[in-house]
Amino acid sequence: MSRVIVSSIGVSIDGFGAGPDQSLEHPLGVGGHALMAWAFTTRTMQQMVFGSSGGATGTDDDFVARGFANIGAWILGRNMFGPIRGPWPDDEWKGWWGTNPPYHVPAFVLTHHARASIAMEGGTSFHFVTDGIHAALARAKEAAGARDVRVGGGVATIRQFVRAGLVDEIHLALGPALLGAGEPLLAGIDLPALGYACTEHVGTAHAMHVVLTKRASVTTP
Amino acid sequence: MSRVIVSSIGVSIDGFGAGPDQSLEHPLGVGGHALMAWAFTTRTMQQMVFGSSGGATGTDDDFVARGFANIGAWILGRNMFGPIRGPWPDDEWKGWWGTNPPYHVPAFVLTHHARASIAMEGGTSFHFVTDGIHAALARAKEAAGARDVRVGGGVATIRQFVRAGLVDEIHLALGPALLGAGEPLLAGIDLPALGYACTEHVGTAHAMHVVLTKRASVTTP
Repeated sequence: MSRVIVSSIGVSIDGFGAGPDQSLEHPLGVGGHALMAWAFTTRTMQQMVFGSSGGATGTDDDFVARGFANIGAWILGRNMFGPIRGPWPDDEWKGWWGTNPPYHVPAFVLTHHARASIAMEGGTSFHFVTDGIHAALARAKEAAGARDVRVGGGVATIRQFVRAGLVDEIHLALGPALLGAGEPLLAGIDLPALGYACTEHVGTAHAMHVVLTKRASVTTP
Repeated sequence: MSRVIVSSIGVSIDGFGAGPDQSLEHPLGVGGHALMAWAFTTRTMQQMVFGSSGGATGTDDDFVARGFANIGAWILGRNMFGPIRGPWPDDEWKGWWGTNPPYHVPAFVLTHHARASIAMEGGTSFHFVTDGIHAALARAKEAAGARDVRVGGGVATIRQFVRAGLVDEIHLALGPALLGAGEPLLAGIDLPALGYACTEHVGTAHAMHVVLTKRASVTTP
Protein backbone atom coordinates (compact mmCIF):
# COMPACT_ATOMS: atom_id res chain seq x y z
CA MET A 1 0.00 0.00 0.00
CA SER A 2 1.21 3.46 -0.80
CA ARG A 3 2.74 5.20 2.20
CA VAL A 4 3.65 8.76 3.06
CA ILE A 5 7.23 9.05 4.29
CA VAL A 6 9.68 11.59 5.59
CA SER A 7 13.30 10.61 5.16
CA SER A 8 16.90 11.69 5.70
CA ILE A 9 16.19 14.63 7.95
CA GLY A 10 19.28 15.56 9.91
CA VAL A 11 18.65 16.76 13.45
CA SER A 12 21.18 18.74 15.45
CA ILE A 13 22.22 18.02 19.03
CA ASP A 14 20.00 20.90 20.05
CA GLY A 15 17.00 19.68 18.05
CA PHE A 16 17.06 21.83 14.96
CA GLY A 17 16.10 20.48 11.54
CA ALA A 18 17.35 23.59 9.72
CA GLY A 19 19.47 26.58 10.54
CA PRO A 20 18.15 30.15 10.74
CA ASP A 21 17.99 32.73 7.93
CA GLN A 22 17.61 30.57 4.84
CA SER A 23 18.88 32.29 1.70
CA LEU A 24 20.29 31.54 -1.73
CA GLU A 25 23.68 31.00 -0.09
CA HIS A 26 22.26 28.92 2.76
CA PRO A 27 19.53 26.57 1.42
CA LEU A 28 19.44 24.78 4.80
CA GLY A 29 19.79 27.96 6.83
CA VAL A 30 22.99 29.26 8.35
CA GLY A 31 24.95 26.29 9.65
CA GLY A 32 22.31 23.88 8.35
CA HIS A 33 24.72 22.21 5.97
CA ALA A 34 26.23 20.41 8.99
CA LEU A 35 22.90 18.62 9.53
CA MET A 36 23.45 16.70 6.31
CA ALA A 37 27.15 15.95 6.71
CA TRP A 38 26.29 12.29 7.24
CA ALA A 39 24.54 12.20 3.84
CA PHE A 40 26.56 14.40 1.53
CA THR A 41 29.40 11.93 1.16
CA THR A 42 27.20 8.91 0.44
CA ARG A 43 27.14 7.30 -2.96
CA THR A 44 23.41 7.83 -3.41
CA MET A 45 23.57 11.53 -2.56
CA GLN A 46 26.62 12.03 -4.76
CA GLN A 47 24.86 10.38 -7.69
CA MET A 48 21.31 11.66 -7.29
CA VAL A 49 21.91 15.18 -6.05
CA PHE A 50 25.40 16.10 -7.16
CA GLY A 51 25.56 14.01 -10.33
CA SER A 52 28.96 12.58 -9.55
CA SER A 53 30.13 9.01 -9.27
CA GLY A 54 31.80 7.64 -6.18
CA GLY A 55 30.77 8.29 -2.61
CA ALA A 56 30.56 6.07 0.44
CA THR A 57 28.44 2.96 0.76
CA GLY A 58 27.19 1.45 4.02
CA THR A 59 24.45 2.27 6.50
CA ASP A 60 24.33 6.02 5.91
CA ASP A 61 24.06 5.41 2.18
CA ASP A 62 21.44 2.72 2.68
CA PHE A 63 19.20 5.20 4.47
CA VAL A 64 19.61 7.84 1.79
CA ALA A 65 18.79 5.24 -0.87
CA ARG A 66 15.72 4.06 1.03
CA GLY A 67 14.43 7.60 0.90
CA PHE A 68 14.55 7.60 -2.88
CA ALA A 69 13.28 4.06 -3.44
CA ASN A 70 9.73 3.52 -4.70
CA ILE A 71 8.81 7.21 -4.48
CA GLY A 72 6.08 8.19 -6.94
CA ALA A 73 5.67 11.83 -5.93
CA TRP A 74 7.23 14.43 -3.63
CA ILE A 75 5.76 17.24 -1.62
CA LEU A 76 8.00 20.23 -1.01
CA GLY A 77 7.44 23.27 1.13
CA ARG A 78 7.95 26.64 -0.48
CA ASN A 79 11.27 27.11 1.32
CA MET A 80 12.57 23.76 0.22
CA PHE A 81 11.82 24.77 -3.34
CA GLY A 82 13.60 28.08 -3.04
CA PRO A 83 14.52 31.18 -1.06
CA ILE A 84 11.94 33.46 -2.69
CA ARG A 85 9.13 34.62 -0.40
CA GLY A 86 5.80 36.13 -1.36
CA PRO A 87 4.49 36.36 -4.95
CA TRP A 88 6.70 34.92 -7.68
CA PRO A 89 8.46 37.85 -9.38
CA ASP A 90 8.78 35.81 -12.59
CA ASP A 91 9.18 32.20 -13.72
CA GLU A 92 12.94 32.19 -13.50
CA TRP A 93 13.41 30.25 -10.25
CA LYS A 94 13.09 26.53 -10.88
CA GLY A 95 14.43 25.09 -7.65
CA TRP A 96 17.86 24.67 -6.12
CA TRP A 97 18.82 21.70 -8.25
CA GLY A 98 19.58 22.91 -11.78
CA THR A 99 17.92 21.66 -14.95
CA ASN A 100 17.73 18.00 -13.90
CA PRO A 101 16.48 17.81 -10.29
CA PRO A 102 16.95 14.62 -8.23
CA TYR A 103 13.22 13.80 -8.04
CA HIS A 104 12.42 12.32 -11.47
CA VAL A 105 8.71 12.23 -10.60
CA PRO A 106 6.08 14.94 -10.00
CA ALA A 107 6.87 17.23 -7.06
CA PHE A 108 4.10 19.29 -5.52
CA VAL A 109 5.21 22.61 -4.07
CA LEU A 110 3.15 24.22 -1.32
CA THR A 111 2.70 27.93 -1.90
CA HIS A 112 0.18 30.69 -1.41
CA HIS A 113 0.94 32.02 -4.87
CA ALA A 114 -0.26 30.27 -7.99
CA ARG A 115 2.17 29.47 -10.75
CA ALA A 116 2.12 27.30 -13.89
CA SER A 117 3.62 23.83 -13.65
CA ILE A 118 7.18 23.33 -14.85
CA ALA A 119 8.53 20.26 -16.65
CA MET A 120 12.19 19.71 -15.91
CA GLU A 121 14.69 17.31 -17.42
CA GLY A 122 14.85 13.75 -16.17
CA GLY A 123 11.16 13.32 -15.41
CA THR A 124 10.80 15.86 -12.60
CA SER A 125 7.87 18.23 -12.82
CA PHE A 126 7.00 20.95 -10.33
CA HIS A 127 3.36 21.66 -9.58
CA PHE A 128 2.30 24.53 -7.36
CA VAL A 129 -0.48 23.84 -4.88
CA THR A 130 -2.24 26.78 -3.29
CA ASP A 131 -5.01 25.01 -1.40
CA GLY A 132 -3.16 23.40 1.48
CA ILE A 133 -1.48 20.21 2.61
CA HIS A 134 -4.46 17.87 2.22
CA ALA A 135 -4.96 18.99 -1.37
CA ALA A 136 -1.25 18.59 -2.05
CA LEU A 137 -1.31 15.10 -0.60
CA ALA A 138 -4.34 14.10 -2.65
CA ARG A 139 -2.63 15.23 -5.84
CA ALA A 140 0.65 13.56 -4.84
CA LYS A 141 -1.08 10.27 -4.03
CA GLU A 142 -2.88 10.32 -7.34
CA ALA A 143 0.39 10.94 -9.16
CA ALA A 144 2.24 8.28 -7.14
CA GLY A 145 -0.30 5.50 -7.67
CA ALA A 146 0.97 2.40 -5.89
CA ARG A 147 4.26 4.04 -5.04
CA ASP A 148 5.00 6.13 -1.95
CA VAL A 149 4.78 9.85 -1.42
CA ARG A 150 7.74 11.56 0.20
CA VAL A 151 7.29 14.78 2.11
CA GLY A 152 10.69 16.26 1.47
CA GLY A 153 10.67 19.24 3.80
CA GLY A 154 11.48 21.75 5.05
CA VAL A 155 10.88 21.71 8.74
CA ALA A 156 7.62 23.69 8.76
CA THR A 157 6.12 21.43 6.10
CA ILE A 158 7.14 18.26 7.90
CA ARG A 159 5.68 19.56 11.15
CA GLN A 160 2.38 20.34 9.43
CA PHE A 161 2.08 16.91 7.87
CA VAL A 162 3.12 15.06 11.04
CA ARG A 163 0.74 17.03 13.25
CA ALA A 164 -2.09 16.32 10.81
CA GLY A 165 -1.39 12.60 11.18
CA LEU A 166 -0.57 12.18 7.52
CA VAL A 167 2.92 10.64 7.72
CA ASP A 168 3.38 6.86 8.05
CA GLU A 169 7.14 6.75 8.56
CA ILE A 170 9.82 9.23 9.56
CA HIS A 171 13.53 8.63 9.23
CA LEU A 172 15.77 11.01 11.16
CA ALA A 173 19.54 11.17 11.46
CA LEU A 174 20.54 12.49 14.88
CA GLY A 175 23.97 13.94 14.39
CA PRO A 176 26.75 15.91 16.00
CA ALA A 177 25.88 19.34 14.56
CA LEU A 178 25.34 22.10 17.11
CA LEU A 179 23.38 25.05 15.72
CA GLY A 180 22.22 27.20 18.59
CA ALA A 181 19.41 28.63 16.50
CA GLY A 182 17.17 27.56 13.65
CA GLU A 183 13.96 25.62 13.14
CA PRO A 184 13.19 23.08 15.89
CA LEU A 185 12.02 19.89 14.23
CA LEU A 186 10.00 18.14 16.94
CA ALA A 187 9.51 20.70 19.74
CA GLY A 188 5.92 20.69 20.92
CA ILE A 189 4.94 17.61 18.92
CA ASP A 190 3.98 14.60 21.05
CA LEU A 191 4.90 11.81 18.65
CA PRO A 192 3.83 8.87 20.87
CA ALA A 193 0.44 10.53 21.30
CA LEU A 194 0.21 10.74 17.51
CA GLY A 195 0.84 7.00 17.35
CA TYR A 196 4.55 6.92 16.59
CA ALA A 197 7.08 4.52 18.03
CA CYS A 198 10.75 4.13 17.23
CA THR A 199 10.83 0.87 15.31
CA GLU A 200 14.42 0.88 14.14
CA HIS A 201 17.69 2.46 15.17
CA VAL A 202 21.17 2.09 13.77
CA GLY A 203 24.21 4.03 14.88
CA THR A 204 27.01 4.94 12.51
CA ALA A 205 30.11 7.06 12.87
CA HIS A 206 28.12 10.04 11.59
CA ALA A 207 24.59 9.71 12.96
CA MET A 208 22.11 7.78 15.04
CA HIS A 209 19.53 6.78 12.48
CA VAL A 210 16.03 6.32 13.86
CA VAL A 211 12.86 5.25 12.07
CA LEU A 212 9.55 6.28 13.61
CA THR A 213 6.52 4.35 12.44
CA LYS A 214 2.92 5.40 12.96
CA ARG A 215 0.38 2.84 14.04
CA ALA A 216 -2.34 2.65 11.42
CA SER A 217 -5.03 2.66 14.07
CA VAL A 218 -4.26 6.08 15.42
CA THR A 219 -6.41 8.80 13.92
CA THR A 220 -5.83 12.45 14.37
CA PRO A 221 -8.30 14.38 16.50
CA MET B 1 43.13 22.31 36.26
CA SER B 2 39.91 21.31 37.89
CA ARG B 3 37.00 21.30 35.49
CA VAL B 4 33.22 21.23 35.84
CA ILE B 5 31.63 18.51 33.76
CA VAL B 6 28.25 17.09 32.85
CA SER B 7 28.34 13.50 31.69
CA SER B 8 26.25 10.58 30.51
CA ILE B 9 23.03 12.49 29.95
CA GLY B 10 20.74 10.54 27.63
CA VAL B 11 18.70 12.65 25.24
CA SER B 12 15.58 11.38 23.49
CA ILE B 13 14.83 11.76 19.80
CA ASP B 14 12.46 14.54 20.77
CA GLY B 15 15.01 16.34 22.95
CA PHE B 16 14.01 15.32 26.46
CA GLY B 17 16.58 14.68 29.18
CA ALA B 18 14.00 13.23 31.57
CA GLY B 19 10.46 11.96 31.38
CA PRO B 20 7.49 13.71 33.03
CA ASP B 21 6.09 13.07 36.51
CA GLN B 22 9.13 11.94 38.46
CA SER B 23 8.25 9.76 41.45
CA LEU B 24 9.64 7.03 43.65
CA GLU B 25 8.71 4.52 40.96
CA HIS B 26 10.09 6.68 38.13
CA PRO B 27 13.36 8.34 39.20
CA LEU B 28 13.96 9.53 35.63
CA GLY B 29 10.32 10.42 35.03
CA VAL B 30 7.81 8.26 33.19
CA GLY B 31 9.60 6.61 30.28
CA GLY B 32 12.88 8.21 31.31
CA HIS B 33 14.53 4.86 31.91
CA ALA B 34 14.81 4.46 28.13
CA LEU B 35 17.12 7.46 28.02
CA MET B 36 19.74 5.48 29.87
CA ALA B 37 19.34 2.16 28.04
CA TRP B 38 22.76 2.69 26.42
CA ALA B 39 24.37 2.96 29.87
CA PHE B 40 22.58 0.47 32.09
CA THR B 41 24.21 -2.56 30.52
CA THR B 42 27.76 -1.21 30.66
CA ARG B 43 30.34 -2.68 32.98
CA THR B 44 30.97 0.61 34.77
CA MET B 45 27.29 1.24 35.44
CA GLN B 46 26.75 -2.33 36.56
CA GLN B 47 29.63 -2.08 39.00
CA MET B 48 29.27 1.46 40.29
CA VAL B 49 25.51 1.84 40.42
CA PHE B 50 24.11 -1.66 40.64
CA GLY B 51 27.01 -3.30 42.49
CA SER B 52 27.16 -6.27 40.17
CA SER B 53 30.01 -7.66 38.14
CA GLY B 54 29.83 -8.18 34.40
CA GLY B 55 28.39 -5.74 31.92
CA ALA B 56 29.47 -4.63 28.48
CA THR B 57 32.75 -2.95 27.64
CA GLY B 58 33.39 -0.74 24.64
CA THR B 59 32.61 2.84 23.69
CA ASP B 60 29.41 3.19 25.72
CA ASP B 61 31.21 1.91 28.79
CA ASP B 62 34.19 4.16 28.13
CA PHE B 63 31.95 7.20 28.28
CA VAL B 64 30.29 6.10 31.51
CA ALA B 65 33.72 5.47 33.03
CA ARG B 66 35.00 8.88 31.90
CA GLY B 67 32.15 10.44 33.83
CA PHE B 68 33.33 8.83 37.06
CA ALA B 69 37.07 9.34 36.53
CA ASN B 70 38.89 12.01 38.53
CA ILE B 71 35.70 13.39 40.10
CA GLY B 72 36.31 15.02 43.47
CA ALA B 73 32.79 16.25 44.17
CA TRP B 74 29.29 16.06 42.72
CA ILE B 75 26.45 18.54 42.55
CA LEU B 76 22.94 17.10 42.50
CA GLY B 77 19.64 18.85 42.02
CA ARG B 78 16.96 18.16 44.57
CA ASN B 79 15.08 15.90 42.13
CA MET B 80 18.14 13.85 41.35
CA PHE B 81 18.54 13.25 45.06
CA GLY B 82 14.96 12.16 45.55
CA PRO B 83 11.27 12.50 44.78
CA ILE B 84 10.41 14.52 47.88
CA ARG B 85 9.36 18.13 47.27
CA GLY B 86 9.16 20.97 49.77
CA PRO B 87 10.45 20.77 53.36
CA TRP B 88 12.07 17.51 54.47
CA PRO B 89 9.48 15.60 56.52
CA ASP B 90 12.27 13.79 58.38
CA ASP B 91 15.81 12.52 57.77
CA GLU B 92 14.75 9.18 56.40
CA TRP B 93 15.35 9.78 52.69
CA LYS B 94 19.02 9.37 51.86
CA GLY B 95 18.96 9.24 48.07
CA TRP B 96 17.95 6.64 45.47
CA TRP B 97 21.09 4.59 45.85
CA GLY B 98 20.91 2.64 49.13
CA THR B 99 23.48 2.76 51.91
CA ASN B 100 26.53 2.88 49.62
CA PRO B 101 25.89 5.41 46.82
CA PRO B 102 28.01 5.41 43.65
CA TYR B 103 29.67 8.78 44.35
CA HIS B 104 32.33 7.98 47.00
CA VAL B 105 33.11 11.70 47.39
CA PRO B 106 31.14 14.65 48.77
CA ALA B 107 27.92 15.38 46.89
CA PHE B 108 26.26 18.77 47.24
CA VAL B 109 22.47 18.74 46.95
CA LEU B 110 20.67 21.90 45.86
CA THR B 111 17.60 22.56 47.97
CA HIS B 112 15.60 25.41 49.44
CA HIS B 113 15.29 23.51 52.72
CA ALA B 114 18.21 23.17 55.11
CA ARG B 115 19.19 19.76 56.40
CA ALA B 116 22.17 18.30 58.26
CA SER B 117 24.87 16.58 56.19
CA ILE B 118 24.76 12.80 55.90
CA ALA B 119 27.77 10.49 55.84
CA MET B 120 27.09 7.36 53.81
CA GLU B 121 29.08 4.19 53.37
CA GLY B 122 31.89 4.10 50.85
CA GLY B 123 33.00 7.71 51.21
CA THR B 124 29.90 9.44 49.88
CA SER B 125 28.58 12.35 51.92
CA PHE B 126 25.52 14.45 51.14
CA HIS B 127 25.59 18.17 51.92
CA PHE B 128 22.55 20.35 51.47
CA VAL B 129 23.12 23.76 49.95
CA THR B 130 20.40 26.36 50.29
CA ASP B 131 22.12 29.41 48.85
CA GLY B 132 22.19 28.65 45.15
CA ILE B 133 24.28 27.17 42.38
CA HIS B 134 27.31 29.44 42.74
CA ALA B 135 27.57 28.61 46.44
CA ALA B 136 27.19 24.92 45.69
CA LEU B 137 29.91 25.11 43.07
CA ALA B 138 32.29 26.94 45.41
CA ARG B 139 31.83 24.28 48.06
CA ALA B 140 32.17 21.47 45.51
CA LYS B 141 35.35 22.96 44.05
CA GLU B 142 36.84 23.31 47.51
CA ALA B 143 36.00 19.68 48.27
CA ALA B 144 37.29 18.47 44.89
CA GLY B 145 40.65 20.21 45.07
CA ALA B 146 42.60 19.41 41.91
CA ARG B 147 39.97 16.93 40.78
CA ASP B 148 36.88 17.72 38.70
CA VAL B 149 33.37 18.59 39.79
CA ARG B 150 30.52 16.75 38.11
CA VAL B 151 27.09 18.30 37.89
CA GLY B 152 25.03 15.12 37.95
CA GLY B 153 21.60 16.43 37.11
CA GLY B 154 18.71 16.51 36.76
CA VAL B 155 17.71 18.50 33.74
CA ALA B 156 16.76 21.72 35.55
CA THR B 157 20.06 21.75 37.42
CA ILE B 158 22.11 21.13 34.29
CA ARG B 159 20.25 23.91 32.47
CA GLN B 160 20.97 26.34 35.32
CA PHE B 161 24.67 25.55 35.40
CA VAL B 162 25.07 25.64 31.61
CA ARG B 163 23.19 28.92 31.25
CA ALA B 164 25.35 30.44 33.98
CA GLY B 165 28.45 29.52 31.97
CA LEU B 166 29.78 27.24 34.70
CA VAL B 167 30.21 23.96 32.81
CA ASP B 168 33.41 23.22 30.90
CA GLU B 169 32.40 19.97 29.21
CA ILE B 170 29.10 18.23 28.47
CA HIS B 171 28.79 14.63 27.33
CA LEU B 172 25.42 13.65 25.88
CA ALA B 173 24.18 10.36 24.49
CA LEU B 174 21.65 10.97 21.73
CA GLY B 175 19.56 7.82 21.64
CA PRO B 176 16.51 6.17 20.14
CA ALA B 177 14.10 6.84 23.01
CA LEU B 178 10.90 8.66 22.06
CA LEU B 179 9.17 10.27 25.05
CA GLY B 180 6.58 12.74 23.80
CA ALA B 181 6.69 14.64 27.06
CA GLY B 182 9.19 15.41 29.80
CA GLU B 183 11.93 17.90 30.50
CA PRO B 184 13.57 19.38 27.38
CA LEU B 185 17.33 19.40 27.92
CA LEU B 186 18.58 22.07 25.54
CA ALA B 187 15.50 23.95 24.31
CA GLY B 188 16.07 27.68 24.43
CA ILE B 189 19.76 27.39 25.24
CA ASP B 190 22.07 28.74 22.54
CA LEU B 191 25.13 26.61 23.20
CA PRO B 192 27.38 28.09 20.48
CA ALA B 193 26.64 31.57 21.85
CA LEU B 194 27.72 30.31 25.28
CA GLY B 195 31.00 29.20 23.74
CA TYR B 196 30.35 25.51 23.19
CA ALA B 197 31.40 23.48 20.20
CA CYS B 198 31.06 19.77 19.55
CA THR B 199 34.62 18.54 19.91
CA GLU B 200 34.06 14.80 19.79
CA HIS B 201 31.42 12.44 18.46
CA VAL B 202 31.30 8.67 18.40
CA GLY B 203 28.38 6.58 17.23
CA THR B 204 27.59 3.21 18.75
CA ALA B 205 24.72 0.79 18.27
CA HIS B 206 22.94 2.47 21.19
CA ALA B 207 23.71 6.18 21.00
CA MET B 208 25.47 9.02 19.24
CA HIS B 209 27.87 10.24 21.89
CA VAL B 210 28.76 13.91 21.63
CA VAL B 211 31.13 15.96 23.77
CA LEU B 212 30.57 19.70 23.90
CA THR B 213 33.49 21.77 25.12
CA LYS B 214 33.30 25.38 26.22
CA ARG B 215 35.96 27.80 25.11
CA ALA B 216 37.67 29.21 28.15
CA SER B 217 37.56 32.70 26.71
CA VAL B 218 33.79 32.97 26.67
CA THR B 219 32.39 34.70 29.72
CA THR B 220 28.76 34.77 30.57
CA PRO B 221 27.01 38.13 30.26
